[in-house]
Amino acid sequence: MKSAQYQGNRRVAIGESQSLPPAAGQVRLEVAYCGICGTDIHIFHGAMDARVQKPQIIGHEVSATVAELGDGVTNVSVGDRVAVRPLFFGDPTTFDRGFSHVGKNLKFIGIDMPGGMQSSWTVPAYTLHPLPESLSLQHGAMIEPAAVACHDVRLGEVQSGETCVVIGGGPIGLLIALVAIDKGATVILSEVNSSRIALAESLGIKAINPLDVSLPEAVSSLTDGAMADCVFEVSGSAPGVEVMTELPNVRGRIVMVAIHPQPKPVNLFKFFWSEIKMIGARLYEEQDFEEAIQLAASGKLHLDKLITQVSPIEEVQQTFETIDANPDGIKYLIALQ
Amino acid sequence: MKSAQYQGNRRVAIGESQSLPPAAGQVRLEVAYCGICGTDIHIFHGAMDARVQKPQIIGHEVSATVAELGDGVTNVSVGDRVAVRPLFFGDPTTFDRGFSHVGKNLKFIGIDMPGGMQSSWTVPAYTLHPLPESLSLQHGAMIEPAAVACHDVRLGEVQSGETCVVIGGGPIGLLIALVAIDKGATVILSEVNSSRIALAESLGIKAINPLDVSLPEAVSSLTDGAMADCVFEVSGSAPGVEVMTELPNVRGRIVMVAIHPQPKPVNLFKFFWSEIKMIGARLYEEQDFEEAIQLAASGKLHLDKLITQVSPIEEVQQTFETIDANPDGIKYLIALQ
Repeated sequence: MKSAQYQGNRRVAIGESQSLPPAAGQVRLEVAYCGICGTDIHIFHGAMDARVQKPQIIGHEVSATVAELGDGVTNVSVGDRVAVRPLFFGDPTTFDRGFSHVGKNLKFIGIDMPGGMQSSWTVPAYTLHPLPESLSLQHGAMIEPAAVACHDVRLGEVQSGETCVVIGGGPIGLLIALVAIDKGATVILSEVNSSRIALAESLGIKAINPLDVSLPEAVSSLTDGAMADCVFEVSGSAPGVEVMTELPNVRGRIVMVAIHPQPKPVNLFKFFWSEIKMIGARLYEEQDFEEAIQLAASGKLHLDKLITQVSPIEEVQQTFETIDANPDGIKYLIALQ
Repeated sequence: MKSAQYQGNRRVAIGESQSLPPAAGQVRLEVAYCGICGTDIHIFHGAMDARVQKPQIIGHEVSATVAELGDGVTNVSVGDRVAVRPLFFGDPTTFDRGFSHVGKNLKFIGIDMPGGMQSSWTVPAYTLHPLPESLSLQHGAMIEPAAVACHDVRLGEVQSGETCVVIGGGPIGLLIALVAIDKGATVILSEVNSSRIALAESLGIKAINPLDVSLPEAVSSLTDGAMADCVFEVSGSAPGVEVMTELPNVRGRIVMVAIHPQPKPVNLFKFFWSEIKMIGARLYEEQDFEEAIQLAASGKLHLDKLITQVSPIEEVQQTFETIDANPDGIKYLIALQ
């Protein structure tokens, strides 16, 4: 039973982990693949040391096979291939208004609790979403980030015929673009990395480098002045926040996907002037996982092209270092078996 | 025919103005009262000199009696008492998405075109909203700011049983509080001026001075931790923007009512974390004027208590100076006849 444990100080060690028999309502999984998320990189960099205890088994983008059922589990069977929605719901509070996925007592599995970079993993049964036969386990590990994208596009209320601008062409930005295209939107991606631009274009996404041209001018020209109905800020950058208010049309929406740890200057006048809306979006709800599975199975998310590298768990430390050294990469998967 | 003309350099002179016969689709009004808005104060201070030509007849919070009809006008009759919705719609653009009240080519009457501080005023007929008999002409001059409040509460989607926090207890903040209370919301007003706090409390609005107590702690305590469903930022201040993100609960809304000419630091993390929404709100649509008239006529807006002073047009310069010297005041009206 191997696991990848964050040790602090840019170290992820391979260790043994216990195979926990599932209690009532739990399921033991044999983990197939676990993707590395931007959040895992932040953990690796020590940026989340105040939240993440050490050592901690990280990872939350998981595909797996059901190995053992605890009492009372009926939603999956042994042998089922599944994706994991890594949310542990705490007690609800009035503050949550029923939205448990962002509730005050939510624990995120893989950050606040041991995660999926372990070959045997025991989780609540309600976290599991069966994968269709047509979906590979590698693609199954992409369901979690795809569900983020489905959630973001849903909260952005993207309609067919609308124009969307996605600021930032990493894994989530590309997936948002692909989900929005599936909704019938025209998408313009803003990205500064030329390899990512080339990848986006190979996926049929119009991509612009805002270091080469003015993004607002490009959007104006591409839309004959109508500008964007929905803007996704996925870059987490100050220039992203600066430009996001220059793009929406009247009552256009900005979906705040990126994590901005520090306050950033925002052009509030534009909100007033054109009655712009900004919508914060975090994680996903059950329906977003179901939509992501359906879209992934349809082939519309081009998941093959988004997977940069698959490495065995023994190489997890090198993989984190590779990601740091290679800004061109998109999604790195760790094989657990 | 007297008019109040902004001359630049904190001067509003009394001058003669032409009585213009109404063209087709226009109506000539005998203006009764014109309120002084925060925007008029900004104009007086020279802060809008780039937009306002000099001399300009200012004023846009108007009650009047219909004096003369241009050809084809059927929506009002001579002798009708009316409020004026001071919007001159330009040609629509695709950017506007049908929202002409904030369209690209909108001209605001009283800023971009001659306004209502003149005893005889000719305007498009579509700007007019008849006032019911029960509503005085002084109260009629309060319909425009009340319509702003109705628009803000409508865009904030305030529901009965919700908790609202209004940051800033000037005329618009107080009217928003009263409109939200009419919707069945519980309202907490944040205001630093003790006279305005006393006025708010005399209107049945719970008011808190954020210089005395922590506003987030007070809201938490008053709501048993449930916090605010909708926050109205009406202060235009940096502390207002800083605190606004500390108040909403999950998927709570912030309505951006105030004009913030410069970008201000915003806690974007909070938007992400609790899926907060921010909604820009500007001016009003036709239905907001109708709602404002209905509410004003019902007495629920306590307009008598919001009118600080009524002065003849000959005293307009002194009135602007009084407003600058008296932060306790709420609404100052100029009598045109």
